[in-house]
Amino acid sequence: MDYISKIRKMSYEELEKFARQIREYIIDVISQNGGHLASNLGTVDLTLALYRVFDPFEDYIIWDTGHQAYTHKLLTGRWELFPTIRKYNGLSGYTNIYESQADRFGAGHVGTSIAAALGIEQGLRLQGKEAHIVVVIGDGALTSGEALEALNQIKTLNSKIKIIINSNLMSISRNVGALSHFFDKLRTSKLYLEMKNLMKKTVTGNIEEELKKLKEAIKVSITGDDFFEALSIKHLGPVDGHNIKEMEEEFKRIKEYDYPVAVTVNTVKGKGFRISEGNPEKYHSAGKFDISSGTFIKTPGFISYSEAFGRTLVKLAEQDEKIVAITAAMKSGTGLEEFSEKFPDRFFDLGITEQTCATFAGGLTRVGLKPVFAVYSTFLQRSFDQLIHDIALQNLPVVFAIDRAGVVGEDGPTHHGVFDIAFLRMIPNIKIYAPCSVQDLADTLYTILKLPLTGPVAIRYPRDSEFGNFDEIYDKIKMIDLDSWEILNKGEKIAIVSTGTLTSRALNVAKENGWTLVFARNIKPIDEKVIDWVFKNHEYVFSLEEGVINGGFGESLNKYGKVYNLGISDEFVTHGSREKLLEVLRLDEEGLEEQIKSIIERRNLHENTNRIR
Amino acid sequence: MDYISKIRKMSYEELEKFARQIREYIIDVISQNGGHLASNLGTVDLTLALYRVFDPFEDYIIWDTGHQAYTHKLLTGRWELFPTIRKYNGLSGYTNIYESQADRFGAGHVGTSIAAALGIEQGLRLQGKEAHIVVVIGDGALTSGEALEALNQIKTLNSKIKIIINSNLMSISRNVGALSHFFDKLRTSKLYLEMKNLMKKTVTGNIEEELKKLKEAIKVSITGDDFFEALSIKHLGPVDGHNIKEMEEEFKRIKEYDYPVAVTVNTVKGKGFRISEGNPEKYHSAGKFDISSGTFIKTPGFISYSEAFGRTLVKLAEQDEKIVAITAAMKSGTGLEEFSEKFPDRFFDLGITEQTCATFAGGLTRVGLKPVFAVYSTFLQRSFDQLIHDIALQNLPVVFAIDRAGVVGEDGPTHHGVFDIAFLRMIPNIKIYAPCSVQDLADTLYTILKLPLTGPVAIRYPRDSEFGNFDEIYDKIKMIDLDSWEILNKGEKIAIVSTGTLTSRALNVAKENGWTLVFARNIKPIDEKVIDWVFKNHEYVFSLEEGVINGGFGESLNKYGKVYNLGISDEFVTHGSREKLLEVLRLDEEGLEEQIKSIIERRNLHENTNRIR
Repeated sequence: MDYISKIRKMSYEELEKFARQIREYIIDVISQNGGHLASNLGTVDLTLALYRVFDPFEDYIIWDTGHQAYTHKLLTGRWELFPTIRKYNGLSGYTNIYESQADRFGAGHVGTSIAAALGIEQGLRLQGKEAHIVVVIGDGALTSGEALEALNQIKTLNSKIKIIINSNLMSISRNVGALSHFFDKLRTSKLYLEMKNLMKKTVTGNIEEELKKLKEAIKVSITGDDFFEALSIKHLGPVDGHNIKEMEEEFKRIKEYDYPVAVTVNTVKGKGFRISEGNPEKYHSAGKFDISSGTFIKTPGFISYSEAFGRTLVKLAEQDEKIVAITAAMKSGTGLEEFSEKFPDRFFDLGITEQTCATFAGGLTRVGLKPVFAVYSTFLQRSFDQLIHDIALQNLPVVFAIDRAGVVGEDGPTHHGVFDIAFLRMIPNIKIYAPCSVQDLADTLYTILKLPLTGPVAIRYPRDSEFGNFDEIYDKIKMIDLDSWEILNKGEKIAIVSTGTLTSRALNVAKENGWTLVFARNIKPIDEKVIDWVFKNHEYVFSLEEGVINGGFGESLNKYGKVYNLGISDEFVTHGSREKLLEVLRLDEEGLEEQIKSIIERRNLHENTNRIR
Repeated sequence: MDYISKIRKMSYEELEKFARQIREYIIDVISQNGGHLASNLGTVDLTLALYRVFDPFEDYIIWDTGHQAYTHKLLTGRWELFPTIRKYNGLSGYTNIYESQADRFGAGHVGTSIAAALGIEQGLRLQGKEAHIVVVIGDGALTSGEALEALNQIKTLNSKIKIIINSNLMSISRNVGALSHFFDKLRTSKLYLEMKNLMKKTVTGNIEEELKKLKEAIKVSITGDDFFEALSIKHLGPVDGHNIKEMEEEFKRIKEYDYPVAVTVNTVKGKGFRISEGNPEKYHSAGKFDISSGTFIKTPGFISYSEAFGRTLVKLAEQDEKIVAITAAMKSGTGLEEFSEKFPDRFFDLGITEQTCATFAGGLTRVGLKPVFAVYSTFLQRSFDQLIHDIALQNLPVVFAIDRAGVVGEDGPTHHGVFDIAFLRMIPNIKIYAPCSVQDLADTLYTILKLPLTGPVAIRYPRDSEFGNFDEIYDKIKMIDLDSWEILNKGEKIAIVSTGTLTSRALNVAKENGWTLVFARNIKPIDEKVIDWVFKNHEYVFSLEEGVINGGFGESLNKYGKVYNLGISDEFVTHGSREKLLEVLRLDEEGLEEQIKSIIERRNLHENTNRIR
């Protein structure tokens, strides 16, 4: 079905009906698959208006982050496949160049769209080709360094790109930053809206230009200096993001402009689904839920690593007023909601600014505080240079609480946290820990923050949960020995040295087979005594980690003896449930056992062959 | 000598004289040691004015990048040590927290100052402490994502920081970006200057506030919307950066303000040294030079890796119009000057925006071009997430030409390019090459760009030069086998597998000792045939690389057999000449030989001991 042609022939009434149909479809599928519900419900009308004016196959439409592009997917050949979204072998939850010609540049992380669009534009220009280049970017994504960098290059590159600012005053948590105040003023100014309506009524005939000038003057007088205009980007709007006709008219206008334009479009996150409209952060990246009540379908009695982290930190912060917490727009995801309520002065949400967050934390340490930067592993990649240059080189005692480390599941390759062990291990001065359970995470955090901090520390833990509750965990919390590995099972011949939460799976395998299992909470520095013991007493040594093998924990053991490294091999990991992916990666119990046995078999065969020769 | 008290007692005449004395001292020392001449000559007067108003020990003055802080160093206890600057065991060329209490936050890379300052401010505030927080940042540094991110958080954090914008309209190359146009207009507007002078003459008495309002109104009307004001940061100036009295008055004023303020100070890079004033890029990071002529002291007949790269790229671009080049404000440093002149349309200087550069390159590939992003290894750390998320995941054929890979010498730990092998090797899809000579770099680049590109490629090469000239090199240029390692010397028992330009040193050592030397140009993927041959035919295998051992090339060989890894151990490398540092790291010929022999000795001892037991 050619939906692009179809929607262009629809009346506005038909479009509204179609928008409702799309929303119902999205709610239905996402209630079963989980996904970015609120952001996608917000962009249904915007996408319809946009594709009545621009062509996703002829023009270049770049969806920043790609988490609001479900309608785009539905209209560009993926209507029937949509129920597979975020499932193993199904559609990606983000834009993906391998999925459709209309996905011009894939994403998952925020703020890359403008840079990509500028590259595409310059490339086309050099080849004498013409196409419209349109970016759709949220106001939250505009807090990120890369987006701001690229905006500042638009004038110099003599670009003509059109930027649709999807302004919902949310990123994932509520937006922070001066720009959001600006958008706030812009969307809420009564005077502005009244004047606009008045002008519409009173001015007739073709004096559009005069009208626009007047509008601009009023806008500036109300909102102060305009950020985009300051960067020589014409700034229009705000337009009602749920009025298709109004948007379409504005998009038609800017299509003709020979210079860069930003249009602010006001959308409501979760639009059209009563329950998510009132609670957009909760339904930003939603799990499965019951449509009638909006209740998430969860197994009761479980506690997530994020919750265990956040609540332990609250307890510690009650006893130590030097502890402060930092997030890059992930208050809820990282489990910091309670902290932010109890200690509003000691909680910093700096927007989607991982670079700034890291250096800011460094600044806090320079005046004696104990900052904990809670961040998803995949987003910490944005702080890589700051980790080296600001934190490690100056040996500043920042605690990095690295959530979503390992395979994250349905969000897929842009979001898996599989590189952190490798990118942290190469940096001098940073200590790295990977607890094996929720209790162990609590104990590790507790110990780190109770002892004097002498330099940077990283703790990584997965997007996972365990049976248990926080009160029980906190009752049992204790200081632990952070420098020593633990021999959890003594066996023969074969030893597994495992770090992180795969350890419990490996322990089962080890017990069943009579193998040794060593738990290596401290990835760096390693426990040289235990590793020596392992090599002296075993014929085969395996390392295990939920991260890439190249540069990972396992490779650091090789200098002590021959180690077979188990982990994630040199390929990007697709999306699907966490359990499914661990199975595919052969990191579930069955896979682990199989991998170990087949390696040993191959080696025996090899040695026997050599002996026969 | 307490220079802070001293300069506060000086008359403006004495200050001018002292400024001249400082400039002479800087020129004298830097002509011998090399260093950031132009930027430091530009900030002499600024620093004097600043420290008459703010106290570098009581207040928190953060020098962004730290490359313009020589006067700051001279005034804060390092006058006598200054002749040691950038020398081994001498003063650092940047701010450094281990050097002085007045160095509040170290730097080397741009754009970190505002984030650090915000952290310090919030930390002090939480503890009920008070101090003035002042950032000095160049207009070039303001093109970087981290600086822009942090600026946007100032309002939300209710910050009162004072930002001195050292506007010289240069970063390292000439600035790019809309902000620079703004500063351009601001500093050159005749109307603005005339009005200002007129007002000074005609207005008397205490009507300062009115005057300022008028100034602001005029400024906005001339320059358009103000970027800083759009972010709710009061923006004052421009002030003459070489008029101490004028600056001092402005600094005194802003010291009292209870809200965040940016002041633009116009400085001239290279001020006070005729030769560098006219040629600031050349003298930005200068080598040793002759004071009377300004001529750099160079050994004739040598060609740098940067030059070989840049000139080879020009030759290739003449034959293939799809080739385009990108730099992040390092046109001259990366050897792209000729390219930019010959192919202005195909050359992109995007300012200090490594994140944007990487994604922009990705965008170019999506419309069929062949972008080459030439970047210093240490600055590529800023593109780490983009390398993974935009380039490798989408397997986009971007060529990363990684200059200053390895030990860079006098610029020290913030600038050594020792992490790139490790941080690239963990990323799937990227091929990594480290040529062994200038000729080999030319051949490698030539081959990569002549063959069809199937995915991302990285070539790394050091800040070094070799005897030779480009015409000869280009005469000999040839297609090479990029997948195979070369056995440069066949020996016995001991084999060294070496990558990059340390190979020539290792070759001498190998020849002298009758050892095998394998040159591994391709770091990834590795040549499995040769590595198998190496293990089958040698008792001891060593890997060698100019980069960190943790996660580096050597560790990737461990799965094929026991390898002793030579490279940079788990510590940050200090500053000093490249040769001196290689000696200290025991990576010069003597050190290499010694390391290998002592490892073998230890192993023999160990084995004999075991046998006796």
